[in-house]
Amino acid sequence: MRISILGLGLMGRALARTLVKAGHSVTVWNRTEGKADGLGATSVATAAEAVEASPLVIVCVLDYAAVREVLCSVQLADRVLLNLTNGRPAEARELTEWVAARGGDYLDGGIMAVPQMIGTPGALILYSGSQPAFERYEEALGALARPRYLGADAGLAPLYDLAMLTGMYGQIAGFLEAAALIASEKGSVTEFTTELLVPWLNAMAAAQPRWAVDIEAGDYATDVSNLEVNRVGMVNLVRAFEDQGVKPDLLLPMQDVLDRRVAAGHGAQGLSSLIEELR
Amino acid sequence: MRISILGLGLMGRALARTLVKAGHSVTVWNRTEGKADGLGATSVATAAEAVEASPLVIVCVLDYAAVREVLCSVQLADRVLLNLTNGRPAEARELTEWVAARGGDYLDGGIMAVPQMIGTPGALILYSGSQPAFERYEEALGALARPRYLGADAGLAPLYDLAMLTGMYGQIAGFLEAAALIASEKGSVTEFTTELLVPWLNAMAAAQPRWAVDIEAGDYATDVSNLEVNRVGMVNLVRAFEDQGVKPDLLLPMQDVLDRRVAAGHGAQGLSSLIEELR
Ligand SMILES: NC(=O)c1ccc[n+]([C@@H]2O[C@H](COP(=O)([O-])OP(=O)(O)OC[C@H]3O[C@@H](n4cnc5c(N)ncnc54)[C@H](OP(=O)(O)O)[C@@H]3O)[C@@H](O)[C@H]2O)c1
Ligand SMILES: NC(=O)c1ccc[n+]([C@@H]2O[C@H](COP(=O)([O-])OP(=O)(O)OC[C@H]3O[C@@H](n4cnc5c(N)ncnc54)[C@H](OP(=O)(O)O)[C@@H]3O)[C@@H](O)[C@H]2O)c1
Repeated sequence: MRISILGLGLMGRALARTLVKAGHSVTVWNRTEGKADGLGATSVATAAEAVEASPLVIVCVLDYAAVREVLCSVQLADRVLLNLTNGRPAEARELTEWVAARGGDYLDGGIMAVPQMIGTPGALILYSGSQPAFERYEEALGALARPRYLGADAGLAPLYDLAMLTGMYGQIAGFLEAAALIASEKGSVTEFTTELLVPWLNAMAAAQPRWAVDIEAGDYATDVSNLEVNRVGMVNLVRAFEDQGVKPDLLLPMQDVLDRRVAAGHGAQGLSSLIEELR
Repeated sequence: MRISILGLGLMGRALARTLVKAGHSVTVWNRTEGKADGLGATSVATAAEAVEASPLVIVCVLDYAAVREVLCSVQLADRVLLNLTNGRPAEARELTEWVAARGGDYLDGGIMAVPQMIGTPGALILYSGSQPAFERYEEALGALARPRYLGADAGLAPLYDLAMLTGMYGQIAGFLEAAALIASEKGSVTEFTTELLVPWLNAMAAAQPRWAVDIEAGDYATDVSNLEVNRVGMVNLVRAFEDQGVKPDLLLPMQDVLDRRVAAGHGAQGLSSLIEELR
């Protein structure tokens, strides 16, 4: 299959290498020259030539502004544009119109992997936008990562991508604060993380699907520790941070939200009800 | 083995029930009467009688102030006091002295489980304080949960307990924000959580032991996305929250810490280096 790639940064190169290995005929272009070396792809001098070369055009550059710059003077008739550049749902929706006005079909993708993971079983790419386009290329794109199609609204892939990153940042924030607490007593952060924290987080994450059901039902009853118990526990926790000389900065808004929710009279509800304070 | 339990709240009752089932001779006391019904334990009228009855005395009440109130007029000579009440490291260290002054040996424990999990394979209790006391009762206590001894400093069990809770609160904060983002577009929060978020969080947690090694080595080089890339990504993320009408409150201090670290000239380091902003 003929596939073109615009943008040969860390990610673009990983995509190109993997598609070449899967037996596709890959044409590549990058703003700065010399990035195509060793990829086994056909390098061309302009974005227009790359778009000309293949019915599927993948763009993976810094941001949406760069995507528009790259595509500003090319025709997209009979082309599927797959944009794997990170952005916001609103940007993906605008770009759908912009591409349609140039005769192209738009597919958005959110890469849930680092470049080193492209082509390995752990990698996932979220897709949204044109369903016919997704179905036409689903098999070929399967060489890059496990594909998951979320719907015709092009904004969905960026939305779910950002939601997954959000979950990750929360987990990272908790890890950093926990590690700082252990390090404050010269405990082994590695032992703590490997033997205690990671199995614990995996066990706790297993409860989240039940919370999701509660959230969708708006039913926040709990048979484990309620908000009032957690509020008291959090006071204790923040005091321990102070005792240890560690800043609880990444935890404080959680305390604030707990306080607000309890003050509003919901102390008997479960932690899942805190979502009501975010919307 | 003779074991006494002071405090028959949700947790105290789960402990008593499980130790009775394991074949121990259990004596119980609670401030308010009528909590011992159906446990199969011997109920006594005063804390002093309960302490008299067994060489191992477990206390599990609201907080350390309640522990002192319960124990204020009892002798602890030749007794091991195992305190499973949640508190801070400093409180556990003070209580060690206090118990020693009354002739007792102090063991602290942090229960990493809800009452429903006591006696099941997923439950964990962290111990610290008197090592001889731990070793004497390790097998009996194994009926409650997998035991893990952290060291002679009684403050260690509360420290590690609080660090694990810290990690959990971070993960929960991320989940809540992510769920709010998905719900803002009427996506299925349950499907998102079960099929995307939880596997993703488990995969991301698997990276934490490597970060722990970096933190202990003070080596923050990265071959994946560095702080500058994350800083830009975070701006995008927070803007998407605004677009969707969702409050990014629980994420904002992460953005703040990222900004500070990059402004200090460490934009090329990995996320693990953010720990330096917390101490
Ligand atoms: N790396 C990851 O772990 C990862 C993971 C998931 C998603 N992503 C997303 O993938 C995209 C690319 O990331 P990357 O890691 O490949 O970044 P990168 O290594 O920094 O490469 C950036 C690419 O964008 C090009 N570019 C920037 N501004 C441009 C412009 N105005 N016109 C034309 N080309 C321009 C650069 O071309 P020059 O060579 O000419 O500068 C380069 O090819 C980003 O949206 C990123 O968020 C990356
Ligand atoms: N539940 C959990 O999921 C969980 C998990 C891990 C750790 N813990 C810890 O376990 C401990 C007990 O929790 P729990 O869930 O059993 O709480 P709970 O159901 O609220 O019970 C509290 C117990 O403390 C007693 N108490 C309170 N103040 C007292 C005082 N001044 N003097 C004597 N007794 C007093 C209560 O006696 P009355 O009946 O007379 O009020 C009751 O037995 C807490 O430190 C908690 O943090 C609980």
